[in-house]
Amino acid sequence: MFLEQEATASVPALPEVHSGISSFLLEKAQNAKVGVFEGRTKPVRERQRLPVVPQGIERDEFLAALDELKAQLGGEFVEVNDKPLRDGWYMEHPNTHDMMTILDEEELVASAVVYPSTTEEVQQIVLWANKYLIPIFPISMGRNLGYGGAAPRVRGSVTIDLGKRMNKILDINSEDYTCLLEPGVSFYALYEALKEKGYDHMWIDTPDLGGGSVLGNTLDRGVGYTPYGDHWACHAGLEVVLPTGEVIRTGMGALPENNTWQTFPYGFGPYSDGIFSQSNFGIVTKMGMTLMPNPGGYESFMYTFQNEEDLGPLMEIIRPLRIGMILENVAQVRHIAQTIAVRGHPRSKFYQGSGPIPDEVLHAAAVESPVGDHTWAYYGMSYGPPHIRAYKLAIVDAEFRKIPGAKKVDPKSLPEDEYFWSRDRIAAGIPDIHELRWVNWTPNGAHIAFSPVSPIRSADAMKLFDMGKKLHHQYGIDFFPAFCVGLREMHLIVEIVFDRDDAERKKAAMDCLRDMIDQAAALGYGEYRTHLVLMDQVAGTYSWGDGALMKFNERLKDALDPNGILAPGKSGIWPKRYRGRGWEMSRESGPVSEGKGVAPPEAPNHS
Amino acid sequence: MFLEQEATASVPALPEVHSGISSFLLEKAQNAKVGVFEGRTKPVRERQRLPVVPQGIERDEFLAALDELKAQLGGEFVEVNDKPLRDGWYMEHPNTHDMMTILDEEELVASAVVYPSTTEEVQQIVLWANKYLIPIFPISMGRNLGYGGAAPRVRGSVTIDLGKRMNKILDINSEDYTCLLEPGVSFYALYEALKEKGYDHMWIDTPDLGGGSVLGNTLDRGVGYTPYGDHWACHAGLEVVLPTGEVIRTGMGALPENNTWQTFPYGFGPYSDGIFSQSNFGIVTKMGMTLMPNPGGYESFMYTFQNEEDLGPLMEIIRPLRIGMILENVAQVRHIAQTIAVRGHPRSKFYQGSGPIPDEVLHAAAVESPVGDHTWAYYGMSYGPPHIRAYKLAIVDAEFRKIPGAKKVDPKSLPEDEYFWSRDRIAAGIPDIHELRWVNWTPNGAHIAFSPVSPIRSADAMKLFDMGKKLHHQYGIDFFPAFCVGLREMHLIVEIVFDRDDAERKKAAMDCLRDMIDQAAALGYGEYRTHLVLMDQVAGTYSWGDGALMKFNERLKDALDPNGILAPGKSGIWPKRYRGRGWEMSRESGPVSEGKGVAPPEAPNHS
Repeated sequence: MFLEQEATASVPALPEVHSGISSFLLEKAQNAKVGVFEGRTKPVRERQRLPVVPQGIERDEFLAALDELKAQLGGEFVEVNDKPLRDGWYMEHPNTHDMMTILDEEELVASAVVYPSTTEEVQQIVLWANKYLIPIFPISMGRNLGYGGAAPRVRGSVTIDLGKRMNKILDINSEDYTCLLEPGVSFYALYEALKEKGYDHMWIDTPDLGGGSVLGNTLDRGVGYTPYGDHWACHAGLEVVLPTGEVIRTGMGALPENNTWQTFPYGFGPYSDGIFSQSNFGIVTKMGMTLMPNPGGYESFMYTFQNEEDLGPLMEIIRPLRIGMILENVAQVRHIAQTIAVRGHPRSKFYQGSGPIPDEVLHAAAVESPVGDHTWAYYGMSYGPPHIRAYKLAIVDAEFRKIPGAKKVDPKSLPEDEYFWSRDRIAAGIPDIHELRWVNWTPNGAHIAFSPVSPIRSADAMKLFDMGKKLHHQYGIDFFPAFCVGLREMHLIVEIVFDRDDAERKKAAMDCLRDMIDQAAALGYGEYRTHLVLMDQVAGTYSWGDGALMKFNERLKDALDPNGILAPGKSGIWPKRYRGRGWEMSRESGPVSEGKGVAPPEAPNHS
Repeated sequence: MFLEQEATASVPALPEVHSGISSFLLEKAQNAKVGVFEGRTKPVRERQRLPVVPQGIERDEFLAALDELKAQLGGEFVEVNDKPLRDGWYMEHPNTHDMMTILDEEELVASAVVYPSTTEEVQQIVLWANKYLIPIFPISMGRNLGYGGAAPRVRGSVTIDLGKRMNKILDINSEDYTCLLEPGVSFYALYEALKEKGYDHMWIDTPDLGGGSVLGNTLDRGVGYTPYGDHWACHAGLEVVLPTGEVIRTGMGALPENNTWQTFPYGFGPYSDGIFSQSNFGIVTKMGMTLMPNPGGYESFMYTFQNEEDLGPLMEIIRPLRIGMILENVAQVRHIAQTIAVRGHPRSKFYQGSGPIPDEVLHAAAVESPVGDHTWAYYGMSYGPPHIRAYKLAIVDAEFRKIPGAKKVDPKSLPEDEYFWSRDRIAAGIPDIHELRWVNWTPNGAHIAFSPVSPIRSADAMKLFDMGKKLHHQYGIDFFPAFCVGLREMHLIVEIVFDRDDAERKKAAMDCLRDMIDQAAALGYGEYRTHLVLMDQVAGTYSWGDGALMKFNERLKDALDPNGILAPGKSGIWPKRYRGRGWEMSRESGPVSEGKGVAPPEAPNHS
């Protein structure tokens, strides 16, 4: 019953999966066409805890309210979440919770899921939530893997699954190089649509995993790997349902009969798009996106660097090349540990001990990879006709070889299923899912990310690397660092891979993450994005001026969402009726559960 | 007494001015070093109307309130505006009104001007304004020529002249290619600072006139002519004093001890910078800006096109070249009329009749210019080392020559003071002021802009061109159109040049502007920016969904500025206590004047 109705993207041939089952299934879950896992090989797993209702409302009242909504949307588009969360791996419901949960799986779950088909229906749902003071949590496609998936921040929220029925590409403008999308359009679907129309002159930009929503990823300020990789910077125009039910169009969209909504982002007056990113101030129902012109040729390249400490000088070389657009896309410097994990083998193939996998084991395992006995791999792409690429690549080569031992890998030497080719596709705007293979590293593999922002500098790279490594070792966790160089800054991306059925290892992962966030903040580094359960902590690090920015965000929240119904707690922003009642999540408090004595939200003062 | 204290930019050699006196003086006013016109050749001109006090407050109470502010800021930094607005051209006070006013000069004037030196003092002024319910209007340097200059939107506002004392370049980071600026830093001053430090590897981007504030221009979403021409897109990080007196830092600035405020614009959570552009939601006291890497060479080029109707096909050629970055900077297509006016001669040299100057007179006048007997001039720049430029220029040449009669102008044939070289400087990030010469077209020349946004398409260009031409002819105004191609859109920029001492011609200009705005909106085109007196009308054209965007802006305004003290009416956004009391300006209502029966703002309900 969760099957997609309208998505038309074909399922690409899945790359060979070396071992394990989880990445195969996650790959399927990531794919635009597949809304559920088909078939089942494992018995249904019973719900461990009772289905939840939103705090502050009685079950009977809640069910009656849902009936009212069913009358508006149609009965089949309002579903109580009382079924098993997973019927084995093969029948997981991907929009009711976080498939990669770092908490107890039944913690951050929806009480119900609703499926609007139009902006007007989203408005109806919002008005309904205001009437009954029910928290609602919109998802585009719920594939925000590593950052919370489809889970709502507040247990028992009603999830609005926007993408299931609102999944149309509303426009592709082949002259302006733009498109207009609904929330359910994945990178795969957009890519396929361009191919289908024969629009070879336009590229999309895709993040590491292509199965997610273009709109959702962009609102979360995700990035991709072409020169159009800053998705937020490349969007143009939003349609937003406000928490009080009104709908606005931003930029030129506010001008009736305009033909520039997707070509000029700013419009007239305050440019408000930004406050709808990483926020709970509105529900975005349409988004314009610009498309990259085909650069007339492209060529991936890969370098490896021998020693861990080469990272520092390498960053000093990368910075001016990247700012000067000689390195034209997000530059990736990946540690050997991640390079090995992404090959898809389980950790147990290389090491059976406890504690972090020793360096010498990693190096032994890497012999079969193109990284060989080196430590860092750089993946890049040059764009344009051959002589233009040659000009840039010669500069890169001369600069990179200033690191003693630097080695250029010949792509012709690499087999078809080598990870290099996945990076090649992604940097050419071709969606891919190879990246997920590293969840095979553990049984029941899942991942969660730590993503601090720093300058592109030797000292900063080494400080973050050393801090992360030390804390991973302290908690007995394998350390998978990769540095992604945006333009003037880089994100260290550390993915912790964990067994989602191992409570003890999950706790270690959480403790490690919380320590890394705190220690990074003490050094002056903050996360650009984080998992739902870490949002309060990360928001708390942005505390300049006695928390002035959060107070400002709260003022906006109270003005736009006076009843506090939209995604309470997202990005650490709590509506007035939740504040000061113990809803923030910390290492000590943990999540909000029944019987934990957290005060239900207050009924707002209707004036 | 208005002399700049700290600006250090040297005065560049002024280009030769062919005739008239006004552009010479305006050029000086534009220069960072010169805060006033030095010397005087004309007698002091008496105030035509009594100095004004803010509506809703008595004169005595106002003067007592100013005394209180003097005690905080120092007596010399609070000035009542009771002196002549201009003591002849040579002693105009540039921060009390619009030097290019399209209304009666005494209409949009400040009651007083205050000069804070720190963010804390700006906070003090804001708290003071809240205490006495006095409208305040911040300016950076007040050089928003063509869009209102230094004038406040509400007559009698207290102008906060931020730039006079807050004019420091707080940081230039030569590794990250960024800087951090106060409001009083002009494009000239920033340029000179880079030169002084020997930072030849970094460029600034400058708009047509380099004397204005980098921060002010960016907040107004102004543009320049290098690949970093979208100033708003190139900024990174704000410090903002809110209308209730709190101060926030956006992006990474909210993280204490960060070193990424200017390198990563977004931070964590809602990205709020946009709502402080073209708005009255806060006073920006610091702004980060990125700097362009020296591209390693550059080369201006110019083409001319014979016929008016060549505009259409030319746009079809420009669009893909611009989106594909073969044309790397804002592409300008200028009509012969503007090309002639910018040479700085008075109209009377060519034509003494009334009504718009006839085409044949224009063409006769153009014989001495590089445009010759053609109609359109294209000014562009190619960046990079010679062989990279050659690649791009060859494509441009082949494409442009598809227009029959297209001619490439050889720069070597052009004398040093030819306008082409001004465009060359600007596209290389070197501030200039040549552009102002066209105010010499009339005596007491001033200008006001009409700037609608459209797709880069033949049909749109011709519709806007025809509409503008027809209305200019109807009102007997010379038509100076130029098309500026951003990336996926273009702005038609029409500057109406008028005699600021000729009430009848000013009315014709206003009527023409109001008709153009309405007719453009009916065709689906909206302005990206407008003059103070046209803001209500332009904001009114962004009316989708029963004015949903304005209602949203008003909701933000009321939440952030409950007492309605900050720049009431800016961008058409009125605080609650002003709404519904006749403050909007229309063709019929005209401006708010004493005795016109407009209701003073209501005292807000303090809760």
